[in-house]
Amino acid sequence: MSLVVVGSVAYDGVETPHGKVDRMLGGAATYIALAASYFTPVKIVAVVGDDFAQEDYDLLAGRNIDLAGLERVAGKTFFWAGVYSADMNDRTTLRTDLNVFADFQPKLPESYRSAPYLLLGNIQPELQRGVRAQMNGLRMVGGDTMNYWIKDHRDELLRTIAEWDFLLINDSEARMLSGEHNLRRAASKVIEMGPHTLVIKRGEYGAILFRRDGHFMVPGYLLDDVFDPTGAGDCFAGGFIGYLASRGIDARDGHIDFLDLRRAVIYGSVMGSFCCEKFGVDRFRTLTRAEVDARYQEFKTCTEF
Amino acid sequence: MSLVVVGSVAYDGVETPHGKVDRMLGGAATYIALAASYFTPVKIVAVVGDDFAQEDYDLLAGRNIDLAGLERVAGKTFFWAGVYSADMNDRTTLRTDLNVFADFQPKLPESYRSAPYLLLGNIQPELQRGVRAQMNGLRMVGGDTMNYWIKDHRDELLRTIAEWDFLLINDSEARMLSGEHNLRRAASKVIEMGPHTLVIKRGEYGAILFRRDGHFMVPGYLLDDVFDPTGAGDCFAGGFIGYLASRGIDARDGHIDFLDLRRAVIYGSVMGSFCCEKFGVDRFRTLTRAEVDARYQEFKTCTEF
Repeated sequence: MSLVVVGSVAYDGVETPHGKVDRMLGGAATYIALAASYFTPVKIVAVVGDDFAQEDYDLLAGRNIDLAGLERVAGKTFFWAGVYSADMNDRTTLRTDLNVFADFQPKLPESYRSAPYLLLGNIQPELQRGVRAQMNGLRMVGGDTMNYWIKDHRDELLRTIAEWDFLLINDSEARMLSGEHNLRRAASKVIEMGPHTLVIKRGEYGAILFRRDGHFMVPGYLLDDVFDPTGAGDCFAGGFIGYLASRGIDARDGHIDFLDLRRAVIYGSVMGSFCCEKFGVDRFRTLTRAEVDARYQEFKTCTEF
Repeated sequence: MSLVVVGSVAYDGVETPHGKVDRMLGGAATYIALAASYFTPVKIVAVVGDDFAQEDYDLLAGRNIDLAGLERVAGKTFFWAGVYSADMNDRTTLRTDLNVFADFQPKLPESYRSAPYLLLGNIQPELQRGVRAQMNGLRMVGGDTMNYWIKDHRDELLRTIAEWDFLLINDSEARMLSGEHNLRRAASKVIEMGPHTLVIKRGEYGAILFRRDGHFMVPGYLLDDVFDPTGAGDCFAGGFIGYLASRGIDARDGHIDFLDLRRAVIYGSVMGSFCCEKFGVDRFRTLTRAEVDARYQEFKTCTEF
């Protein structure tokens, strides 16, 4: 069932110990949409400038992603550049040119409004809230945020996530949002803020899904090589919500089968792991659904006892 | 079946964000033996000074640990003191007084020599090798080491672990020993050095078991509070080998059921997690086998999908 994805479509400059690319397709909405497209029909809401390349448009369209909500305006596309540390656990931002993204006001085409699933990538909480208000008949909504919104736009953010079914953040964000260092206690506090489901992404160490009635943990997939971790968290989000959308999960009454959520976490982990295998979105140029399912099985083999 | 444990029995001074204890029972052999004692009969080989307290002797004896190999000599027991960082992922050593441990020459009582299992705690590799040479009829042998031996006694260490079935080390030690940052490649290199089984302990992030034919990953148990992580890695080792000994696993032909190894990793994780719940060895004063098995089940519930 259809999933609306909102966030940035961008160009990235990335340097990792494996190489350097000056400019390539990136942005949270791009990664989320590509990953989710392996599971469910995706509709993107984003803005790009008049420099947005036809080949990048074609890559998204080639994955059957609906681009009716990809607004093109005069100016340049959002550009971000960063360099990763030797172990790739840290990165330094070299440049952030918001360009046309600075005035992004997500507008949903009429054809998007009745989609049952909504994933809000990391943008200003008030904009995330505005998008949710434009939708009707949502079965499940959730999204991502970051330290900047947690620190400097806390009230806005709390109003926004109060209406979400799930929140996907990393461990340091969970600690910052809750004021608790211990992840179990941090999760309890975040769940009090509204979302009945919290997924804490831990990069190479995997992820933990928390609900009031328990939690589920998955270790990180062991890659032979991490070429570029950019977008891995967004791909996790895309795999997570994409799988739930493909199953037609309805979160409106708060009761979701825990097994579906567990499997969604695994598919999220699978998509995040593939993302790291090449620079930028390159892995998605060749990735097949069969490879996705094979890696899901590999997770089972490597974790069951 | 009987397990011989060799290593330090010590007094520790520990400070964590939860408190400070100036002097309490510690040492690798103590933690390994206590944890393993929930699964199998344990025989300890270690040295203490004439300051070693009767109540500490009684704690070990109370867990049916054979203390025939606990040598008492004139002088003071090994003393270590350290302080943990706020997140407890780092610790600073404040004091190391080797005392009687400086001249430790492990001597196995006759009654120990035919025990089928041997766990060599972190001591000088040549001493570990000498202990192994005193045993006959071993079904399985393995142990721990540390950065100091890897860097400064590499040849000795390589000769020693070449005779082991398994090696239990943390991720930074695996990287140092192999010269590879990537854990998958690091593990392949370590397995070339001799041990057919490598367990990489990752603290709060769990553990990974590697063999030539695959690997098994477990996330770390989510504790409500980590009071004191001292000894957690040793307790992991004790649970791991203790479970294998209780099953009578014979590693001499190199074929071990992977499922037994997976379960051993879980029992290791269980014992490591309990260790952190109180200061020093305190958790083992009250811990029951029923609690151990309940936590094993909890690991299953939190990781299966």
